[in-house]
Amino acid sequence: MDRIRRNERMAALIRMLSVAPNRIFTLSHFCDLFGTAKSTMSEDIDLLKDVLSAFDLGRLDTVTGAAGGVRFRPAISQGEAKRLITDLCRELVKPSRLLPGGFLYLSDILSTPSIVRSMGVILAEQYYESAPDFVLTMETKGIPVALMTADALGVPLVIARRSSNVFEGSAVNINYVAGNAGHIETMSLSRRAVQEGQRALIVDDFLKGGGTAKGMIDLMCEFGVDVVGMAFVMSTASPAQKRIRGEKALMVMDVQPDDPGSLTVTPAGWLTNGNDVA
Amino acid sequence: MDRIRRNERMAALIRMLSVAPNRIFTLSHFCDLFGTAKSTMSEDIDLLKDVLSAFDLGRLDTVTGAAGGVRFRPAISQGEAKRLITDLCRELVKPSRLLPGGFLYLSDILSTPSIVRSMGVILAEQYYESAPDFVLTMETKGIPVALMTADALGVPLVIARRSSNVFEGSAVNINYVAGNAGHIETMSLSRRAVQEGQRALIVDDFLKGGGTAKGMIDLMCEFGVDVVGMAFVMSTASPAQKRIRGEKALMVMDVQPDDPGSLTVTPAGWLTNGNDVA
Repeated sequence: MDRIRRNERMAALIRMLSVAPNRIFTLSHFCDLFGTAKSTMSEDIDLLKDVLSAFDLGRLDTVTGAAGGVRFRPAISQGEAKRLITDLCRELVKPSRLLPGGFLYLSDILSTPSIVRSMGVILAEQYYESAPDFVLTMETKGIPVALMTADALGVPLVIARRSSNVFEGSAVNINYVAGNAGHIETMSLSRRAVQEGQRALIVDDFLKGGGTAKGMIDLMCEFGVDVVGMAFVMSTASPAQKRIRGEKALMVMDVQPDDPGSLTVTPAGWLTNGNDVA
Repeated sequence: MDRIRRNERMAALIRMLSVAPNRIFTLSHFCDLFGTAKSTMSEDIDLLKDVLSAFDLGRLDTVTGAAGGVRFRPAISQGEAKRLITDLCRELVKPSRLLPGGFLYLSDILSTPSIVRSMGVILAEQYYESAPDFVLTMETKGIPVALMTADALGVPLVIARRSSNVFEGSAVNINYVAGNAGHIETMSLSRRAVQEGQRALIVDDFLKGGGTAKGMIDLMCEFGVDVVGMAFVMSTASPAQKRIRGEKALMVMDVQPDDPGSLTVTPAGWLTNGNDVA
């Protein structure tokens, strides 16, 4: 390939940008790579912006200033997000998914790459401007969606463990109140996992009372880390009063005790009406 | 956007194909979407093949036959894979990463999206032809790389748990011999997670004696599932005799007991010399 044409450049560009989401590349980087002038590259970028927007394939931004350049952010339109989550709700409301204790069988949904990628992108969009340095989750089921959220944000994932009996060196342990019964459990994070002054986005699969989430906030407090947001795949309608505030969930489930037929799973309000309250 | 130009079509195409890895799309699907003739679309595909190959950005294949169409597979050239893994080895060999018991601190590497994505693509390439129906991992640390491998292969991830005290409905439990000390531990998988006759690819972070991996094979046996391969991020040189055979690891670590200075971490043989033996 001697002479690189615009169509080839644009295809290569979008692939390169999309495997490094939310990272700023200088125009010069691509000019050198493709052997083109800056003006030509700017035109390529403008054309790409339009086509991504036309087909709802993500957002390309030009960032000005000294550290400026071009940045790709995975994105899904509000309409498409609503459609995806509504489809998921329809699948999840099947009575066979209801487990004892008012839980839903979500494991398949939570580890299908295409589904967690979409959920990660929808959640990331809510927190691009909060600029977290990492995503924090608690093992195990939230890890895939937390990883995809971290991927879209271009930051590492940090995983808190249920026990410090693991091979991660010296660790900070905290106790937290789990579940409605008020059991005390332990959460552990390696000392070297995060640094003081960083900003964390908490992502997890399920929010009921908020005890585990509160534990993660306390854990971040021990590390001197600021929590900039909390996002969940599923929240329960009951208890309405959680131990945390300001969270966003993709879906809300409600079920009357001992009446599986009363199960409802609905997209969160902020997804369906453009309103910013979960 | 009334009339869609080739450069716009190609950029949109590569983005659409790359968010659905290893899935076959008919040409008609894209002809309808862009309002173009089949011959034009074939030309687009040929141009895309060349540009992806020229910039080492993945592989576009035309699949013939009744269920035929076009399929994108993430791919990394042998040279680039070797460079990536060699860089990782250089980072991992730092003595500060060595933990008691001959383990390495890998948690940061294992949950950085860009790193696990590359590892997932390198591993997936070894198993595209084995056509697994899902990727199986054991919680916790292997989940991110297993998810990215599953993503590249276009299949779901299935996560075995250390305890059945989880909210996943009725489960199959097996006991397995963990570690050199010969402790008996329990591994659990929800009954509804997989189906008889499916094909599994096992992906995990660390292979020492092979007890956990052997447990996963036994677990799949209980489900009537065929294990088509086993892949690991890191294998230990000692013991040389593992409880499993035929595995592939990206890296091999070696360290003499009580001598941290003897630590070595090297890319696996099959990565560096094109030979197919781990």
